[in-house]
Amino acid sequence: MTWLDLPDGTGFGITNLPYGIFSTPGTARRTAVAIGDRVLDLAAATGDPVHATGTLNAFMARGPAAWGALRRQLTAWLTDPAHRAAIEPLLSPRADVTMHLPIEVADYVDFYSSRHHAENLGRMFRPGTPPLTPNWTHLPIAYHGRAGTVRVSGTPVIRPAGQLGAARFGPSERLDIEAEVGFVVGMPSTPGEPVPVDAFTAHVFGVCLVNDWSARDLQAWEYVPLGPFLGKSFLTSVSAWVVPLAALEAARVAPPARDVELLPYLDDSAAPWGLDLTLEVRLNGELISRPPFKQLYWTAPQQLAHLTVNGASLRTGDLFASGTVSGPAGDQYGSLIELSWNGTAPLTLAGGARSFLEDGDVVTITATAPGPGGTRIGFGEVTGTVTPAPRRAPA
Amino acid sequence: MTWLDLPDGTGFGITNLPYGIFSTPGTARRTAVAIGDRVLDLAAATGDPVHATGTLNAFMARGPAAWGALRRQLTAWLTDPAHRAAIEPLLSPRADVTMHLPIEVADYVDFYSSRHHAENLGRMFRPGTPPLTPNWTHLPIAYHGRAGTVRVSGTPVIRPAGQLGAARFGPSERLDIEAEVGFVVGMPSTPGEPVPVDAFTAHVFGVCLVNDWSARDLQAWEYVPLGPFLGKSFLTSVSAWVVPLAALEAARVAPPARDVELLPYLDDSAAPWGLDLTLEVRLNGELISRPPFKQLYWTAPQQLAHLTVNGASLRTGDLFASGTVSGPAGDQYGSLIELSWNGTAPLTLAGGARSFLEDGDVVTITATAPGPGGTRIGFGEVTGTVTPAPRRAPA
Repeated sequence: MTWLDLPDGTGFGITNLPYGIFSTPGTARRTAVAIGDRVLDLAAATGDPVHATGTLNAFMARGPAAWGALRRQLTAWLTDPAHRAAIEPLLSPRADVTMHLPIEVADYVDFYSSRHHAENLGRMFRPGTPPLTPNWTHLPIAYHGRAGTVRVSGTPVIRPAGQLGAARFGPSERLDIEAEVGFVVGMPSTPGEPVPVDAFTAHVFGVCLVNDWSARDLQAWEYVPLGPFLGKSFLTSVSAWVVPLAALEAARVAPPARDVELLPYLDDSAAPWGLDLTLEVRLNGELISRPPFKQLYWTAPQQLAHLTVNGASLRTGDLFASGTVSGPAGDQYGSLIELSWNGTAPLTLAGGARSFLEDGDVVTITATAPGPGGTRIGFGEVTGTVTPAPRRAPA
Repeated sequence: MTWLDLPDGTGFGITNLPYGIFSTPGTARRTAVAIGDRVLDLAAATGDPVHATGTLNAFMARGPAAWGALRRQLTAWLTDPAHRAAIEPLLSPRADVTMHLPIEVADYVDFYSSRHHAENLGRMFRPGTPPLTPNWTHLPIAYHGRAGTVRVSGTPVIRPAGQLGAARFGPSERLDIEAEVGFVVGMPSTPGEPVPVDAFTAHVFGVCLVNDWSARDLQAWEYVPLGPFLGKSFLTSVSAWVVPLAALEAARVAPPARDVELLPYLDDSAAPWGLDLTLEVRLNGELISRPPFKQLYWTAPQQLAHLTVNGASLRTGDLFASGTVSGPAGDQYGSLIELSWNGTAPLTLAGGARSFLEDGDVVTITATAPGPGGTRIGFGEVTGTVTPAPRRAPA
């Protein structure tokens, strides 16, 4: 129990304690923890300069023992009334602060781990062939995205222009979302040494929400044979808050049954880290999808083990995302290309029909997960408003 | 003319002046410029703390005017005998210093811009279909690689392990090279604002050599549909020296004729930046290929314009590489998969036949380009020795 008066139904209760980077007018960026509708200034509360660096990276690099120690300290401060007098003045209303990108992103990797999403795209783009490629059930497919264009929730989504086909240039006509969950690496690894599935919690600091904005027309023309590039690289939005892994113990579930026997390096059955998150996707305020993360075929420890099995090393700030989260039902798809079935079945919304995003559209993704003792763990939101492609000289 | 006594045929003459990061035992990393077989300590020579930061990034972020000013200063110091007494004590033999990764890599993008390379791979892997995909002549295809595993020349090449096919795991049996040329971004760009071809020299600082080590078996199994991932991410090696664009004016040539009319944003005909570099690839000391960079279909300004046309922004330290450089002749291919035609025609070398790399193999890539007044511009080398895959518990 905290001595704070928390709003009913907050996802930022005492069992969550997510980290972010905030500022107020005239002050530098520093670390905060969210509690209810307020933020606690950790630079002031701890006096530790690590929380005044303007990103979470330096703190994340201290490792799991330091993460655990601070979490225990925060819990004590916010529950023991003896600390109230010292801590309360360091709280600010969340509505009064500006949130920034919480991490300096090192490498950004995007997986493709939802079976339903991969099957839906296979059915649309490779009709008459098996919806999954032969490798899909053997390994978590992924590619590297552009780390330099990962930005915080609220960053405007400038409609990208590019090649829409041979000798066709213009603003994307098929701008889409991808509702995803991201995992943030705190502890680096040694070059040449794979990170086994059971070292997941020794390296991963926490979890955020991701919207991997996608221009389907750019992507379709460019992606054979080397994969997505400009169709994705203009912007990837992440939530302002990073939920510590320690807040997600009650959300852990076993992942779906496996189609094929996995190689030992991908066997996470001893301590599974499927997660019972439910995402909600809203377009101009209207709920359009509730993707169930627990149905993801590949878990985060499997993704991490795969991404390092060739000896590739991790850095503090690496971000790896799940890929679009889609469930089996038509109202559980994590992208508009699935929700509108490639534009053949537009969504009917209060604001009009939608297959892809129009200028001015606002997309907001939220999520919750079970917390200890019947509490709920919230992830805040990742949101963005589509702005028109800039006017340029004819290209 | 410099007052230094330079070795005959040096590629590091007074018209080159490449930058790198060096240290000596017990001293911190700092910036050097190479001249002949020596390095000049720029932290000491200039007294400017920007050259004591341990990477070139902070200096690169100052922009082209600062790059030009320092280059004029260096030329004066090294040519006017009046400066000899002050400068000579700040020179060290290159053989006595340790070189480090010259830049902190922000995002790493790898293009696919050699037509001969793309056609060779198409012929091998998609026989009976046109060797180039339909998009190839319309846009410079590229993908994002792993920035965190870009390392300096000389870093051991630990043979990667991974999935070689369904339920097959082990060290790569088809470890390969890719001889490439890399371009280093100094000046960032604004999100949402494309960088036109004629802004190339306002953003790009210099040029290095790249070996994009590739595990062909891992790559073949994983790469459909999202492109290369673990087949590349274990290591990318770069040369220790970054040659300033200003040293390459005499090497500029027009690129090959275009098959199709290009969209205006890719039209670089007003000021072409094809470059007459000749690469040399040596395997255990034996020359196996001389890839001609001037035959690259897509130039660096085109690559930069394409990579930003969707509004993706640049950061200081971004590295974009050409992709494997291959010429039309069989002794001009930039990869072993081409030189051995997918293993069907192994190379006959003094050390034995080679289709792919064996443990202990040493691969060294060098390059030269024409400089002003009949001089030659050298790029140093990018080299690496293959070491065995680590012994691990059975996976």
